[in-house]
Amino acid sequence: MRDGDQARADGPFAPEIEGAEAAGRIVVVCEHASNHIPMAWGDLGLTADQRRAHIAWDPGALGLARGLARRLDAALIHAPVSRLVYDCNRAPDMPGAMPARSEIHDIPGNAAITPQERARRTAAVYVPFHDGLHALLMRRMALGLRPVVITIHSFTPVYFGQPRAVEFGVIHDADPTLAALILSGAQAAGKLVSALNEPYSAKDDVTHTLRLHATPYGLPNAMLELRNDLIASPEAEERMADHLAPILAAAVASSP
Amino acid sequence: MRDGDQARADGPFAPEIEGAEAAGRIVVVCEHASNHIPMAWGDLGLTADQRRAHIAWDPGALGLARGLARRLDAALIHAPVSRLVYDCNRAPDMPGAMPARSEIHDIPGNAAITPQERARRTAAVYVPFHDGLHALLMRRMALGLRPVVITIHSFTPVYFGQPRAVEFGVIHDADPTLAALILSGAQAAGKLVSALNEPYSAKDDVTHTLRLHATPYGLPNAMLELRNDLIASPEAEERMADHLAPILAAAVASSP
Repeated sequence: MRDGDQARADGPFAPEIEGAEAAGRIVVVCEHASNHIPMAWGDLGLTADQRRAHIAWDPGALGLARGLARRLDAALIHAPVSRLVYDCNRAPDMPGAMPARSEIHDIPGNAAITPQERARRTAAVYVPFHDGLHALLMRRMALGLRPVVITIHSFTPVYFGQPRAVEFGVIHDADPTLAALILSGAQAAGKLVSALNEPYSAKDDVTHTLRLHATPYGLPNAMLELRNDLIASPEAEERMADHLAPILAAAVASSP
Repeated sequence: MRDGDQARADGPFAPEIEGAEAAGRIVVVCEHASNHIPMAWGDLGLTADQRRAHIAWDPGALGLARGLARRLDAALIHAPVSRLVYDCNRAPDMPGAMPARSEIHDIPGNAAITPQERARRTAAVYVPFHDGLHALLMRRMALGLRPVVITIHSFTPVYFGQPRAVEFGVIHDADPTLAALILSGAQAAGKLVSALNEPYSAKDDVTHTLRLHATPYGLPNAMLELRNDLIASPEAEERMADHLAPILAAAVASSP
């Protein structure tokens, strides 16, 4: 929790933007950057361990996103609130937007949400996040920078008791072009077990941000998923950024 | 021009919203409601006649939109600035967003726009309009109202010297369902010469608002185009609203 947050009560919670004027084409997006639960929502009935677990955020994703943005001269935007309050990568009518259950955990504070409370969280977290991203992208588009949208996520190595072999997933929405370029770069580099549309795909409704901001504008886009045990320390995040940055740069360079 | 506008200098220009808490499902959108050019852009080098012509706005569209919203208990949102400053139904990288020429008219104030000026107009007009519409729709979606997006436009009876026979066009983006229902209702009523995807279609990039706000959320949507000689007075707007409101209500009632 950062100083000053308690003063903001129940929002709106503007996204954090770093490098808004960066010269590169890429805009790095991190919807699940923070496990912060603002005071207005208490602890959602969760233990401290649960609030630190992958259900509350994507551990390592923000560190990796920052490492990539720095190396690629990219703009970075990230959400300041836990996805258990509102998951910014889900539309307000999706059950996953304010989930009553995540993997094997019940979320007591989300068990019975009134329509008014759904509207309150939507206005406090979801709308400001996407307004911020939209304004950032539109400014860069108007300036002629031809933005590329890359979202950064992490996933848990064990899900519902099953270990996951994939280490790096590249996911696309309607246009597979950039995702395919990134995947072949990663496979050619030969370091990570990489796969297209793993461990999730657009069919699981995980490409909401891409669908909202990239697809309607014809912007090249991809969603990257890293297994979180590979980015579990600041040093590991930096190593992963070192590995992935040239792969992304090459993919974007061959992109329309 | 309304009182107070001159104080706003170069924006941002928030959209006007009427009936935000209306109980019906429909959100009526009017991107080309106004021919107002804020002081910061002078007269764009146009004569008074040009600033009153269809190139600057969609004459009759706002009156019809209001008439429909009242009859359908719908929310209404409209842009307060001429589309010659920024056309809110176009993305910032489209030539038509700030057109240097419209039909047979050169727009001197848009002849040579710098990237910085494109970004300024985008931030002043386009971004606030779509933020306002997004917030309106998301609130209604979170409340469980299952929004339906209907945009209202008008077109000139003579275009590049050619008369247009069609009186009522129904245009769709990716999902044709609602448009098809509205068209069959209009054809069954037998009063207007009606056609699908006339006088424009999604291929002409005229469905930007639908693509941005309805398609990514799976919301039923349609764009309605009325020939402007049929809504050229407040009485004519009311008669058209009387005719179209039951057709729209029936189409939405059969819509998912």
